[in-house]
Amino acid sequence: MKEKAASLFKESQESICKALENCDGSGEKFSTDMWERTDQSTSYGGWGETKVFSKGNVFEHGAVNFSKVEGTMPARLAKNVINKDKDVEFFATGTSLIIHPFSPLVPTVHANFRFLQVDGQKWFGGGADLTPFYVFDEDAVFFHTQWKNTCDKYGRDYYNSFKKQCDQYFYLAHRQEARGIGGIFYDYLGQGKTDKEFEDLFPFITELCSTFIKAYIPIVDKRKNLEFTNNQKKFQLLRRGRYVEFNLIYDKGTKFGLETNGRTESILASLPPEVNWQYCYTPEDGSEEARLIEILKNPRDWV
Amino acid sequence: MKEKAASLFKESQESICKALENCDGSGEKFSTDMWERTDQSTSYGGWGETKVFSKGNVFEHGAVNFSKVEGTMPARLAKNVINKDKDVEFFATGTSLIIHPFSPLVPTVHANFRFLQVDGQKWFGGGADLTPFYVFDEDAVFFHTQWKNTCDKYGRDYYNSFKKQCDQYFYLAHRQEARGIGGIFYDYLGQGKTDKEFEDLFPFITELCSTFIKAYIPIVDKRKNLEFTNNQKKFQLLRRGRYVEFNLIYDKGTKFGLETNGRTESILASLPPEVNWQYCYTPEDGSEEARLIEILKNPRDWV
Repeated sequence: MKEKAASLFKESQESICKALENCDGSGEKFSTDMWERTDQSTSYGGWGETKVFSKGNVFEHGAVNFSKVEGTMPARLAKNVINKDKDVEFFATGTSLIIHPFSPLVPTVHANFRFLQVDGQKWFGGGADLTPFYVFDEDAVFFHTQWKNTCDKYGRDYYNSFKKQCDQYFYLAHRQEARGIGGIFYDYLGQGKTDKEFEDLFPFITELCSTFIKAYIPIVDKRKNLEFTNNQKKFQLLRRGRYVEFNLIYDKGTKFGLETNGRTESILASLPPEVNWQYCYTPEDGSEEARLIEILKNPRDWV
Repeated sequence: MKEKAASLFKESQESICKALENCDGSGEKFSTDMWERTDQSTSYGGWGETKVFSKGNVFEHGAVNFSKVEGTMPARLAKNVINKDKDVEFFATGTSLIIHPFSPLVPTVHANFRFLQVDGQKWFGGGADLTPFYVFDEDAVFFHTQWKNTCDKYGRDYYNSFKKQCDQYFYLAHRQEARGIGGIFYDYLGQGKTDKEFEDLFPFITELCSTFIKAYIPIVDKRKNLEFTNNQKKFQLLRRGRYVEFNLIYDKGTKFGLETNGRTESILASLPPEVNWQYCYTPEDGSEEARLIEILKNPRDWV
């Protein structure tokens, strides 16, 4: 499963990057940095490819990371990950992406697909969530519908469970707001299953990976040529501040990466290129901006 | 000591704001938000004043917070603060500030002065550190000299010890860089002393508070009218990204504030108004920008 999962995620990285380049249409390409790491002192090693896109027509900045690492996980991390008080062997591979479009009318998106094996236990994790600055209800419905369609093919409870986990995970407690309009999030999927049962999950994971393009690109195509105002752009820059707050304060992947001394530039390639903060910013009552915040404070069932 | 310390920090807030307004010279004033809090469920209450400055001639954004709070600190926080595994009574008062000048040639500054009483133990904490984007050596020497002069009047080891603690505290492990050129940082000062000995520290704390204006304003006055380039401004925006990373990933005050459900807008008023991130930005060899980073990687003794 280690090699099978790594191949799937590497291929997904490639196909997602191609789809984004086509959608952008500027001729800009993702640049690739390959890194390798061998750390004798922590028995930690592996490799990855960080693909970064910048200054396109549609996408201001994007990062699509692939990595495959293994080694010894120190007890302090093992405690959080599998509730063990000792150093444990681990293997992790996955693809993780965040795309920041230039237009405030095109939503930011994040997705992650990963396989972990820790101290003999194995599971899949991942998901995808959409962060619009201006909510087109039909886009939110469309995004959720794509994930639901894929989930429903493999299990009747998957979508509802994953949707709920997504709302719980992408939540900024200090702002009492969701990060965006959600999507799906799953973790420890398949943990405790037999090898055969675990193998049987693989087609589902494969289809989740390919759902990303179907769920996101049509929304971008629909909104990328809409005109926007300076005020809408300003609002996007303020909302990107929330994205930074989530990633640096809460995100487990970011924390795990930084705490295991991962490649900082790859981990933080998720941060937006331009961000603003403004003390006590409050949108006008009844505005589109106020509507976004109301939606973020009261997560909806979109399908 | 509770009331005495609170009065000192409140007065310091006022005098620092006045000095900054005068130095700015635009006629802009700090706005004031007073907040009060009573939380029966957590036996936590108090009040504060958040003073925010924006869009001056010199200062793009600044926040000078005063607060005075008391209540029950939950065991999980008490563990970190005084290594006790139980809920404990606490009292905390302090003034904390971060100033973001518009010009990249004027350094960002942070200072904090606080008094804590937790489970019967009491101590002072605080410090001040300078974050230049372009290092004028004479300014770094000047800043450190002011703090050293004050420290030396009260104890021969204070400056060396506080300077070292500052370099250790304001360090971004994931970047292997200091946040700036340092200053002083102290914590648990006076812990374990008799009441008389503790009282004797008060003139020192008072003089530290008044040293801030003497250590920072002359540097601003010297640099505020220098012309700067667009590239220098861009570099400042990238470096502000590091400031955000420090505050959201490492800063204990920010963490404590957010975890105790403090007033988010006051806590995060420290974040810069405009920030950029750029994947794998590297300054040109031999440039002023490269020199900054070399200094941040190898903290110096400035006096």
